[in-house]
Amino acid sequence: MMWWSFLRVTSHPERKRTVSNVRVKIVGAGGYGGIGLIEMLLRHPQAEIACLVDVEGEGPISRMWPHLAGYCDMPIIRPDDPKANEDYDVVFFCTPDRVGMKTAPAEVAGGHRVIDFSGDFRSPDETTYAEYARRLGLDQEHLSPDLLKVSSYGVPELYREKIAKAKVVANPGCFAICCLLGLLPAAREKLIDLNGIVCDAKTGVSGAGKKARSAFHYPEMYDTVFAYRLTGHQHVMELETQLSLASGSDIKLTFTPQVVPMARGIIGALYAPLAQGVTQKRVLEAYQSAYEGEPFVKVYDGSGPAGTGAVRGSNRCNVLVACDERTGQFRVLSHIDNLLKGQSGSAVQNMNVMFELEETLGLNQPGAHP
Amino acid sequence: MMWWSFLRVTSHPERKRTVSNVRVKIVGAGGYGGIGLIEMLLRHPQAEIACLVDVEGEGPISRMWPHLAGYCDMPIIRPDDPKANEDYDVVFFCTPDRVGMKTAPAEVAGGHRVIDFSGDFRSPDETTYAEYARRLGLDQEHLSPDLLKVSSYGVPELYREKIAKAKVVANPGCFAICCLLGLLPAAREKLIDLNGIVCDAKTGVSGAGKKARSAFHYPEMYDTVFAYRLTGHQHVMELETQLSLASGSDIKLTFTPQVVPMARGIIGALYAPLAQGVTQKRVLEAYQSAYEGEPFVKVYDGSGPAGTGAVRGSNRCNVLVACDERTGQFRVLSHIDNLLKGQSGSAVQNMNVMFELEETLGLNQPGAHP
Amino acid sequence: MMWWSFLRVTSHPERKRTVSNVRVKIVGAGGYGGIGLIEMLLRHPQAEIACLVDVEGEGPISRMWPHLAGYCDMPIIRPDDPKANEDYDVVFFCTPDRVGMKTAPAEVAGGHRVIDFSGDFRSPDETTYAEYARRLGLDQEHLSPDLLKVSSYGVPELYREKIAKAKVVANPGCFAICCLLGLLPAAREKLIDLNGIVCDAKTGVSGAGKKARSAFHYPEMYDTVFAYRLTGHQHVMELETQLSLASGSDIKLTFTPQVVPMARGIIGALYAPLAQGVTQKRVLEAYQSAYEGEPFVKVYDGSGPAGTGAVRGSNRCNVLVACDERTGQFRVLSHIDNLLKGQSGSAVQNMNVMFELEETLGLNQPGAHP
Amino acid sequence: MMWWSFLRVTSHPERKRTVSNVRVKIVGAGGYGGIGLIEMLLRHPQAEIACLVDVEGEGPISRMWPHLAGYCDMPIIRPDDPKANEDYDVVFFCTPDRVGMKTAPAEVAGGHRVIDFSGDFRSPDETTYAEYARRLGLDQEHLSPDLLKVSSYGVPELYREKIAKAKVVANPGCFAICCLLGLLPAAREKLIDLNGIVCDAKTGVSGAGKKARSAFHYPEMYDTVFAYRLTGHQHVMELETQLSLASGSDIKLTFTPQVVPMARGIIGALYAPLAQGVTQKRVLEAYQSAYEGEPFVKVYDGSGPAGTGAVRGSNRCNVLVACDERTGQFRVLSHIDNLLKGQSGSAVQNMNVMFELEETLGLNQPGAHP
Repeated sequence: MMWWSFLRVTSHPERKRTVSNVRVKIVGAGGYGGIGLIEMLLRHPQAEIACLVDVEGEGPISRMWPHLAGYCDMPIIRPDDPKANEDYDVVFFCTPDRVGMKTAPAEVAGGHRVIDFSGDFRSPDETTYAEYARRLGLDQEHLSPDLLKVSSYGVPELYREKIAKAKVVANPGCFAICCLLGLLPAAREKLIDLNGIVCDAKTGVSGAGKKARSAFHYPEMYDTVFAYRLTGHQHVMELETQLSLASGSDIKLTFTPQVVPMARGIIGALYAPLAQGVTQKRVLEAYQSAYEGEPFVKVYDGSGPAGTGAVRGSNRCNVLVACDERTGQFRVLSHIDNLLKGQSGSAVQNMNVMFELEETLGLNQPGAHP
Repeated sequence: MMWWSFLRVTSHPERKRTVSNVRVKIVGAGGYGGIGLIEMLLRHPQAEIACLVDVEGEGPISRMWPHLAGYCDMPIIRPDDPKANEDYDVVFFCTPDRVGMKTAPAEVAGGHRVIDFSGDFRSPDETTYAEYARRLGLDQEHLSPDLLKVSSYGVPELYREKIAKAKVVANPGCFAICCLLGLLPAAREKLIDLNGIVCDAKTGVSGAGKKARSAFHYPEMYDTVFAYRLTGHQHVMELETQLSLASGSDIKLTFTPQVVPMARGIIGALYAPLAQGVTQKRVLEAYQSAYEGEPFVKVYDGSGPAGTGAVRGSNRCNVLVACDERTGQFRVLSHIDNLLKGQSGSAVQNMNVMFELEETLGLNQPGAHP
Repeated sequence: MMWWSFLRVTSHPERKRTVSNVRVKIVGAGGYGGIGLIEMLLRHPQAEIACLVDVEGEGPISRMWPHLAGYCDMPIIRPDDPKANEDYDVVFFCTPDRVGMKTAPAEVAGGHRVIDFSGDFRSPDETTYAEYARRLGLDQEHLSPDLLKVSSYGVPELYREKIAKAKVVANPGCFAICCLLGLLPAAREKLIDLNGIVCDAKTGVSGAGKKARSAFHYPEMYDTVFAYRLTGHQHVMELETQLSLASGSDIKLTFTPQVVPMARGIIGALYAPLAQGVTQKRVLEAYQSAYEGEPFVKVYDGSGPAGTGAVRGSNRCNVLVACDERTGQFRVLSHIDNLLKGQSGSAVQNMNVMFELEETLGLNQPGAHP
Repeated sequence: MMWWSFLRVTSHPERKRTVSNVRVKIVGAGGYGGIGLIEMLLRHPQAEIACLVDVEGEGPISRMWPHLAGYCDMPIIRPDDPKANEDYDVVFFCTPDRVGMKTAPAEVAGGHRVIDFSGDFRSPDETTYAEYARRLGLDQEHLSPDLLKVSSYGVPELYREKIAKAKVVANPGCFAICCLLGLLPAAREKLIDLNGIVCDAKTGVSGAGKKARSAFHYPEMYDTVFAYRLTGHQHVMELETQLSLASGSDIKLTFTPQVVPMARGIIGALYAPLAQGVTQKRVLEAYQSAYEGEPFVKVYDGSGPAGTGAVRGSNRCNVLVACDERTGQFRVLSHIDNLLKGQSGSAVQNMNVMFELEETLGLNQPGAHP
């Protein structure tokens, strides 16, 4: 159980130092993604923060986020500050679309590995990216297409080996990883009608980031649930792409994002017609088998702990398999903390894989309840 | 104090007095259903409270619920108190299953009409009731089967004329009415595959009533969303029965109830495969047509006000039609306040219909925002 | 739709029409103050909305605030729209400091009466205003000093007769009225050491208005309580001025505003050393006597309903007198809904007094619990 | 910074093993106090859980609290289970009054040290205890009076050396430690009028424990603030006792406990007349000096991070000194997480002191924001 007594011994060709901490540069340090990373790296036994970069804020990060006072008082520096380019091994871009892809080539050329939080590297190729960008109304040209070839989608449960070698890892979207982990075994094993998938997903408000907006103003948000993007489907592409790759079919699915009055958590209710003859038992076994040995995915049947509260503050994904045989419906409830498994936790997990560390380092603790 | 001293003039055959207010007896007055009724009846220009009955609490209702102080200070009396059987026209049973059906025959025999909040009268016949009761683990024998023949399911949008004549009205369940109003036009007109309906429904905590329970203890509930009854399907029967009657088909559907950290509101996300050739435009038109002239149902397309906040504190049901033509999925988001259209509001609406009053009396105001 | 078609019969000299509703113009209609007014005027039997003016928003008010759809769909118009100056009796300025005082002279000259929500008319004279404005960093010159002479501070419990005649009424600040009603009898009757008053006041977030700000972003606000303005005292001036006038002493007090994670409500905990020989019984009697007959102030001892929930959604102020004789401390807990008695409710109450209507019209209902 | 590489080498006479982890028995493991301890001990490098005892629950603790699944799956055992008395060094009684004092003598006789969460050992002697018990309506006889002589009040900032030697440590009450840390330097140095102290304290709901109660039912609690115990003063005795001891005066103070709709956090607003000639600067310096070097108390002036959010999830106490010189009022805002510095965090800190470990072990991390 005592994970802090390891020495890190790694033979990874990228690593110049063989016995030392991974040094981390965080770009966009002042957002929820950034402070989530800081919180985890503070307790990570084999990683340390090299510098905190942001275009907003000044002085110590703990002036902006006082809960860090005494734990992390490093200054926020600008991207062009020379100190932003000193000794580090990996850079996390906790930044919006088209920021990471601009700087990533220089980072990689400098021998640093990259973990990007945006959609920049989530597409497997330039064409897919162009379609993704078109739907979002972004410029369709990818700015570092060569890096797409040495990048990986950052879900270790799916691409562990590829991530270990990748120069750039695309940290997954929070809705996407929640639904993906809840659908993967069923999609891969064709346990469901792949043309009839519905994802009814509800997120806590922190999924929208730290920026104040009218809809998330406390008096507007405290006693309402609402759906959004009912007329579009641009954001479902990441999930469709990964499920299509995993299943070998061209999957289109119905996605209904909703916001509920809580800070943290996503619950994805996932439906599809069960394939002919498939039972709850069969589905449950497929899930248990698929996630056996996975440190951060727990499979339960419908009597499991059904609530985001059970994963709050942890990197865990709880998957409840609860098909309705009476109606022939596949049903899975997938639960994550959107800021951990849905963001910074996955990022640290990816870093651990990339640097051949124990995959659970810095992540191996439950949240604080209540 | 009564600044609404209108004359009620009604020709309803049931009514003995032709010029006066409807006098209301509330059984179970101390629960959320009871105080919701009180709040509305206080502003109802042609109804008045005759007495408040409960097996718990004592002294004025405003001792239990101090927000009523000065507005309603009537005493809570026991069911066997003689004053509980004085002059009134209608009795609301805001009580659990098998309470209303026990007393209803005597009430009806005494010339009073009945509105029951439980499942006692929601079944169209004894056989259906027996199946309902079996699933819930209740005694299967209906205690007043004759009354089933003079009762109506209490959704005016569906049974307005029957309600007007009924001696007993079964006030609908909160989840049921939310999903029913969201599915009715599609089911009746066969716009969807009736075998593939999924209802993903989220409720605020008040749906569970006033009784404190561990799961709803503030520190347990404040930052979590959870699904429940994933292994059963007993509570979906009311909805299936009504949809089957409306469509002429035997409908079974998948229902996922969830609780979110808010006090009031239900959002029902309703899915099914679109029938061959059916478009969003076709569905929207069917809904607009079905609910034209309905005072408490508003139909929008997917750009409408998507949130329970817009119906909080009102008797409104907002139905957003937002099908996904790309995937061939019918999708409707139905929103109500679970304590109003989902409970006491519907009850007052039913009473207005029963006594041939203007249907919107006492209900015709928006909630207080925020 | 209008089921409240009473005749208003008034002999007030200001009124040109003798039989009709009070017609109301609302400036700043799209803020929380404005929609609160709309909600109450919709159910007011002797008032009606003439027009809705705002510098933001367009189209019907119900597009901005969809809970009003079907109840109030009047368009938002600009201040310079000719329709903004058509037939009305009273204008409510739900606007920031220095807006109302600019336009008020023209309004009054046009025969309209004014209720202003800002600090513009809360000072009894120009000198006091200059000091108030200086502390807030505003221009110190009052723009309509002549109107100060025909204005009244808008607390009917204190200035009922003056309000009835005033051309301009200064609607009180939410913290101020909560603390003022909790302190008035003690200050007037010198039951306490007037030099040792402490007001520890906590407000729900709606007190800050509808504008989104980082501190009130749901994820920042949902699980924290914080104090603010610990280094200044500018906002306490309104309260000090009124208490000084009422007591005939020059009162300075310590004020600690705090924000708690709720939407509505203020609880003011008010402390001071008890004057020599004054008991809890003496204080309680003074309060009961002072507020006897007041429709919107209820006095309790320390066993009363201690919580803002009991006044949520109503125009009530609940005052709990709970002195600690053991320590010789006066202690009163004063509770209001900051958007009603603390804002729009007081405004309607003031309007009723100004137009010699029943003081409780439009206000005489409890909130909806929970 | 890396605290996990220490070996614990201790010469404490009580300790039989010189190089090993402290083994911990938790009685009342299933309450909020118990799971808070478990969460911290899981990351404590020199302590480990020996057994979990409770009179409720069965099977693994993670069945009751699923967020612990995979991190702590130890079984809950009964107090009389033989395994409850196997190898351990310290027992935490996370139990109500009069449970710990009953068993503590046997525990101490068995060579175990005791940390008790109740009021059993917070009184310095039998007489004081009798008065405390009398006020609470408990039996007044202390059941292990001899242990009072070898016990210490568990606030290391006040009694570090005594705690190190004590056989029994009385973990402080959450309100008490919050107010005590905020008042100590002022009381000790007579910077204030000791007869005029007012503590206006607001707590999150978890302070009431895990037991569901009507007042804390989500729909009742989500939008209200309320004060309680306005007519009594029994719970202030712990605070008065400690302040009296620290100042050498007999202190009586006014205490107003309030509950706000949040899960975690206490803000104590502390007032008293400033002593003659004492300035904000003088007070601030006294506080900075008093808490210099304290790992878990941070002193700020009135511009510091004013909110419980900044200490949420950490063992920190943030003390803001914000006197109002204009009115001559001392004012301090003290902030803690009621479940950490207010309960389990203090308990682990006490354990570290008792076993001569680094005082910050297991506690040295910020909370997760938001």
